[in-house]
Amino acid sequence: MDFMKYALIEAEKAMEAEEIPVGAIVVKDGIIIGRGYNQKEKKSNPTEHAEIIAIREACSNIGDWRLNGCEMYVTLEPCPMCAGAILQSRISRLYIGTFNKDMGACGSVVNLVDNRRLNSFVNVIWTYDERCSDILKIFFHLKRNGILQKRRL
Amino acid sequence: MDFMKYALIEAEKAMEAEEIPVGAIVVKDGIIIGRGYNQKEKKSNPTEHAEIIAIREACSNIGDWRLNGCEMYVTLEPCPMCAGAILQSRISRLYIGTFNKDMGACGSVVNLVDNRRLNSFVNVIWTYDERCSDILKIFFHLKRNGILQKRRL
Repeated sequence: MDFMKYALIEAEKAMEAEEIPVGAIVVKDGIIIGRGYNQKEKKSNPTEHAEIIAIREACSNIGDWRLNGCEMYVTLEPCPMCAGAILQSRISRLYIGTFNKDMGACGSVVNLVDNRRLNSFVNVIWTYDERCSDILKIFFHLKRNGILQKRRL
Repeated sequence: MDFMKYALIEAEKAMEAEEIPVGAIVVKDGIIIGRGYNQKEKKSNPTEHAEIIAIREACSNIGDWRLNGCEMYVTLEPCPMCAGAILQSRISRLYIGTFNKDMGACGSVVNLVDNRRLNSFVNVIWTYDERCSDILKIFFHLKRNGILQKRRL
C-alpha cells in the first residue's frame, strides 16, 4: 500500500491553500485514522502543522492519546515541535518523505527521535520520495515568481 | 507584576482536573493574551499541553501566528514539543518556573531554545520558583497515595 500517496494528497490541500505543502497521516492496522495538512497561515496558529492535526484527529477517532502501534507518514521531516508531538503520542513508526535542512528534528538539524534520554521509541524510515521533495520545489518556485494560484496542481 | 502567579492559577486548574499541574500564560505589553493548562488526559490528545493551548489562545486573540515581543510564563520547563512550539511562535522571552529532569528541552535533557541552527531567538529566564515545584510535588504525592481529589488545593 502506497500510504505516502495519502500524505501527499494532504500536502496538495496545503498547496491549494497557499500554505507550505506538508501532509501527514496516521495509520493503525492498515487503516488511516488521522489526516492533516499545514494550516499555519489560514488558522493564524504556528502549531497547526500537518503532524499535530493528524495526531489530534487520530486520537479523537480512537479516544486515546496513546498511538502505540500506529504509523505516521509525513511528506517532510518533522520540525522539533512535531517530532516532540510524535514522541508524546508514542507513535511507533515514522515514514519521512524528504529531509528538512532548516528545521528537521529527525537528524538534519537536531535529532529528537533517536534519543534514549527522551524515551523515544519511534522507528524512523526515510523513504526519499521525489514526490515529496518535488511538491515543495514547485511551491517555492511558484512563490518566488509570484504565480502561485489557488488551483489543484 | 508577579505574572508567574497567573501561570500557577492555570496549573491549579490542571490539578483540579487530575492532570499533571502545568500552566502557562502569554503576555504582550503587560497584558495576558493567552492562558493554558495541561489537558492531555481530558482531551485524549497528547498535544494539549499548557504552552500549546496558551499559544493558540494568544494567536487567536491577536489574529497572527507571530508572537514576537511576547513573553511566556510557564510553571515547568517545556518538553521538546512545547519548546518547538515556542520557537515556531517566535515568543521573545520565556520565564520558566522549575526544571523538568525527564523531558526538559530548555537545557535539562536537550536544549532547543539556545540553538542557532534552529533560528531560536528566545531569551530564557529561570525563576526557580518554589510554588512551581511544590505544586508538582503535591500532585505526585497525592497520586502515589491514591488520595487525589477534585478540589482546589
